[in-house]
Amino acid sequence: MFVRVLEKTVRRRGLLERGDRVLVAVSGGPDSVALLRGLIELRSRYDLSLTVGHFNHGLRGAASDAEERFVAELALKAGLELRTGRMPTASVRPRGRSLEDWCREHRYAFLDATAREIQAGKIALGHHRRDQAETVLMNLLRGSGIEGLKGILPIRDGRYIRPLLDTDPAEIRAFLESRSLSFRNDASNRDIRHLRNRIRHDLLPRLETVYNPAIVHGISRMAEIAGLENDFMESVLPEAYASAGGREGQGGVRFDIPAFLTLHEAIQNRLILLVVRRLIGAPSGLTHAHIQLVRNLLGRSGYAEVHLAGGITATRSYDHLSFQQTADVSSPASRSQHRPSRLRRKGTDAEAGFQFDVPIPGVLSLAPGCRLRFEVAGVTRPVPTGREIACLDYERIRFPLVCR
Amino acid sequence: MFVRVLEKTVRRRGLLERGDRVLVAVSGGPDSVALLRGLIELRSRYDLSLTVGHFNHGLRGAASDAEERFVAELALKAGLELRTGRMPTASVRPRGRSLEDWCREHRYAFLDATAREIQAGKIALGHHRRDQAETVLMNLLRGSGIEGLKGILPIRDGRYIRPLLDTDPAEIRAFLESRSLSFRNDASNRDIRHLRNRIRHDLLPRLETVYNPAIVHGISRMAEIAGLENDFMESVLPEAYASAGGREGQGGVRFDIPAFLTLHEAIQNRLILLVVRRLIGAPSGLTHAHIQLVRNLLGRSGYAEVHLAGGITATRSYDHLSFQQTADVSSPASRSQHRPSRLRRKGTDAEAGFQFDVPIPGVLSLAPGCRLRFEVAGVTRPVPTGREIACLDYERIRFPLVCR
Repeated sequence: MFVRVLEKTVRRRGLLERGDRVLVAVSGGPDSVALLRGLIELRSRYDLSLTVGHFNHGLRGAASDAEERFVAELALKAGLELRTGRMPTASVRPRGRSLEDWCREHRYAFLDATAREIQAGKIALGHHRRDQAETVLMNLLRGSGIEGLKGILPIRDGRYIRPLLDTDPAEIRAFLESRSLSFRNDASNRDIRHLRNRIRHDLLPRLETVYNPAIVHGISRMAEIAGLENDFMESVLPEAYASAGGREGQGGVRFDIPAFLTLHEAIQNRLILLVVRRLIGAPSGLTHAHIQLVRNLLGRSGYAEVHLAGGITATRSYDHLSFQQTADVSSPASRSQHRPSRLRRKGTDAEAGFQFDVPIPGVLSLAPGCRLRFEVAGVTRPVPTGREIACLDYERIRFPLVCR
Repeated sequence: MFVRVLEKTVRRRGLLERGDRVLVAVSGGPDSVALLRGLIELRSRYDLSLTVGHFNHGLRGAASDAEERFVAELALKAGLELRTGRMPTASVRPRGRSLEDWCREHRYAFLDATAREIQAGKIALGHHRRDQAETVLMNLLRGSGIEGLKGILPIRDGRYIRPLLDTDPAEIRAFLESRSLSFRNDASNRDIRHLRNRIRHDLLPRLETVYNPAIVHGISRMAEIAGLENDFMESVLPEAYASAGGREGQGGVRFDIPAFLTLHEAIQNRLILLVVRRLIGAPSGLTHAHIQLVRNLLGRSGYAEVHLAGGITATRSYDHLSFQQTADVSSPASRSQHRPSRLRRKGTDAEAGFQFDVPIPGVLSLAPGCRLRFEVAGVTRPVPTGREIACLDYERIRFPLVCR
């Protein structure tokens, strides 16, 4: 059953081609051990060259090293080449990055570099259907919007593949048993503090018990459709960009408003998101509220501007809508924070002084320990209250908002 | 605040035009009372003609009648015309229909007929943001797929409008207080047995407490985007239909397979859904598993066919993919069940006898109390076990499957 579902997933989702060289990411847990064995059993049919990759996060000392040895032995028994990596000892985790994110970044960097070295066109990961349901729920709970619903993709960047995405953990355990394969359990997975683990051990079992025993299937099916539809939406953007008169220049992007407005509202929103992301060079932290601000611009006449995430200013000037990055951003990957890095002189010399453009939403670091956080509340979020909170009427603010 | 948000919603979502005649559905609960008052306060700006509509479900005897009197008084005080309706006493609820569904059908029939009578182009409903979040969660938990994520639409069929969709219950209560308005509480809302009420009183508060206090905002924002994107996907279907050589004839719909396959997979799936719905004339009960069956057909050569929901057969015959309704369906609105209504004579006279085409998924009623339920398990659902369950290997079944 397991291998048949695996093969079906590979075929249906186009994950492998004959002759592929595949780096298989093996942690030593049940999922990756089953993944490795499943791919070994498909090897001849697809004429695959397999290499085992293991990344030692070194978080649990001797236990981590024992896992590495376990994977080494697994590779040896299977007659496969092994590549290992570990967290660089000298690296310092940046403030605000979670340990989980930091480890993931290094793990993927290792997988990328190794795949390049051994000229593997594919990197196989052991995520299964339940991981998928957890991810979608996590995104939903975080309020990450419709893009989060596609969850983890069966194939990402044409390179990372997830052949177990149609498989349940129970099927994985049954397969391991049928092949008498052992595995290591990662103890950190049991830590209830992490959001994912709370979803894994509390929310998802509860939803299955009280609401729908087949919810994992339902959610992962929905994720698949969301992934496809998202892909389609993205595929029509280049044409939409051109038809809205989109063009780059002067360090930004410009559209013709009348042409832009003939597009479907969903496409207008996607274009705004696309352009902001392109200017920032990373996921944008752009929210629905920001998109709404740009839409409001379109309803005005003459000149108007709004400040978006990542230091982007959207300007309406008669028949043109333009987006420009007016401030550098400290960390392009940072989703909700950015520091002002440009000190502007304004007005006459007499009035001039250091001043900061206010990022909305965002955080302004005036001095160590002295930070102002800005967010839009009320319409899209409850209005917070407290001694250190000031509420301004968004519709009466004149932009750019400056702190001096 | 309430009226400003209401007005913003009306403007942003294009719910009203100047001079609109609006039938306002008023149950007497806080939401509809606030809706009515809010529209009264917007009346002059939009030059609205308002009529109050109340439907008495008669489920709670004297309490229901008291609600009707309460709404009548409300209309009288506001100087507005009142139209009332009630459940027909002679009507019998069909088996398998929930009381809630049955009431809703009659309520909407009343609203539709009344709007036609008074020539109201709009029917205003009091659903708010929390209703939206509940609906999306309910759809998600039911496994209703990506279309369920759009939740309730701000405007449906160009006629039903929901001006409170960006408003929270707390804002509604505050508004009612500020205007010294009273309202009636609908006791049946507190019944924890209903799925919606379990979500309302248990799941949603829990998600807010444990996971994200702003989840209602997050979900309703996501629903808005999902609604827009769904609308866009639907808007491109006519062109896709034509470019895939879609044409009606012989009681079905036919595509040219090579042209069909040039379309994006998301669009192929939507077209399958569209055609099946058009043939059935109602929501189809078509699941992702069915769509996958059609996709499998496309990968074969020569002649092949599969049986879908609602008595639809999809046939691949060389370069053509066709969909035909081969069996009537007992209740087109029924999503998961349909009875065979066509008794076919097959083979020679000697072999001939009554026989039933098997609906997959579906229920076959052979005699009162004797029913066979068919479903596809394993790949998309856990394989059920039990004494009265037989599992057949789907891939080895030859279609059409016949019960005799």
